[in-house]
Amino acid sequence: MARTQGSHSDITGPRIREAALRLFARQGYAAVSMRQIAAEVGVQAGALYNYIPDKQSLLFGLMKGHLDELLAARAAVVPADNAVDRLEEFTRFHIRFHHDRPDAVFIAYMELRNLTPENFARIESLRRQYENELEDILRQGVTEGVFDVPDTKVATMALIAMLTGVNTWFREGGRLSLPEVETIYWTMVRKSVAR
Amino acid sequence: MARTQGSHSDITGPRIREAALRLFARQGYAAVSMRQIAAEVGVQAGALYNYIPDKQSLLFGLMKGHLDELLAARAAVVPADNAVDRLEEFTRFHIRFHHDRPDAVFIAYMELRNLTPENFARIESLRRQYENELEDILRQGVTEGVFDVPDTKVATMALIAMLTGVNTWFREGGRLSLPEVETIYWTMVRKSVAR
Repeated sequence: MARTQGSHSDITGPRIREAALRLFARQGYAAVSMRQIAAEVGVQAGALYNYIPDKQSLLFGLMKGHLDELLAARAAVVPADNAVDRLEEFTRFHIRFHHDRPDAVFIAYMELRNLTPENFARIESLRRQYENELEDILRQGVTEGVFDVPDTKVATMALIAMLTGVNTWFREGGRLSLPEVETIYWTMVRKSVAR
Repeated sequence: MARTQGSHSDITGPRIREAALRLFARQGYAAVSMRQIAAEVGVQAGALYNYIPDKQSLLFGLMKGHLDELLAARAAVVPADNAVDRLEEFTRFHIRFHHDRPDAVFIAYMELRNLTPENFARIESLRRQYENELEDILRQGVTEGVFDVPDTKVATMALIAMLTGVNTWFREGGRLSLPEVETIYWTMVRKSVAR
């Protein structure tokens, strides 16, 4: 008996996703069983299948949820009218958004290899939507005559990797606050595409 | 009977490491068993223990081997006398070296969580040696008055993440050759730290 609707599903569904995110990030997708996820949530293994058909759907759902949230957050931003201000806003946004979700970011990079080809294509298409906004900002700056970027596609990938890298070293309570880190990165980003 | 020396060990040892690297990169450390590694190499599971005490040693050995090779390659470089040339050489070297070893690079980032604390500390110390060379180049450029870097430590992490990111998108036979990609990244790196 499927129970995707009902009294418990509203709470249990998100709890399953949270547990899966935590376990995948710690041990890796391939090492985690549905049984383990059920135990972490505190339900019977069989009950898990009322909420989620299989582990692949869980992984895909986590990655898609992460990117949907990212794109929704971008859609809520009223873009500045000039490329420099847009790029600064994008830079600070990217660092903060990814800093707040280290497990989701780690999985989004690490577990691409475990998606089915169809799911991989859907995730890549969402990710490309996000990258396209940055490339659009760089193109606008070139048109405005304020940026000099030899290849806007490569520059997009270079800047995103640079900014996401904050997650690998930044620790709360260290020498620098996150806003200070944002400002340092913004200085480098701005100069890297400057004329 | 331990057989770390002898007729087969010279070939079997490297073959075990290659198989482990491949399997760890594909499935993740936690999902791979010593039995699976033995099967991939074509030896009995028991025979594996003549070459390697356990899976942790194998992981640590792979990461240490990667970083030892990286540091040896750096030690072989005769540094230019000015910071700009040193930074260009470092930029091109980093992209090429990491491009040639995608599995080792992927594991070095992804499987840090699976090292014992002692092994983690040893790997981090080797990695820091490499990062220190880049920071030294940035400091030299500041002293020479050719670079303007608000925080050489943060700039080091930012540039390394940017350069390693090439591995996530570059594919041989695509729109750009690796030397072309190197040149585009070098342009961005140079400007990002310029006065």
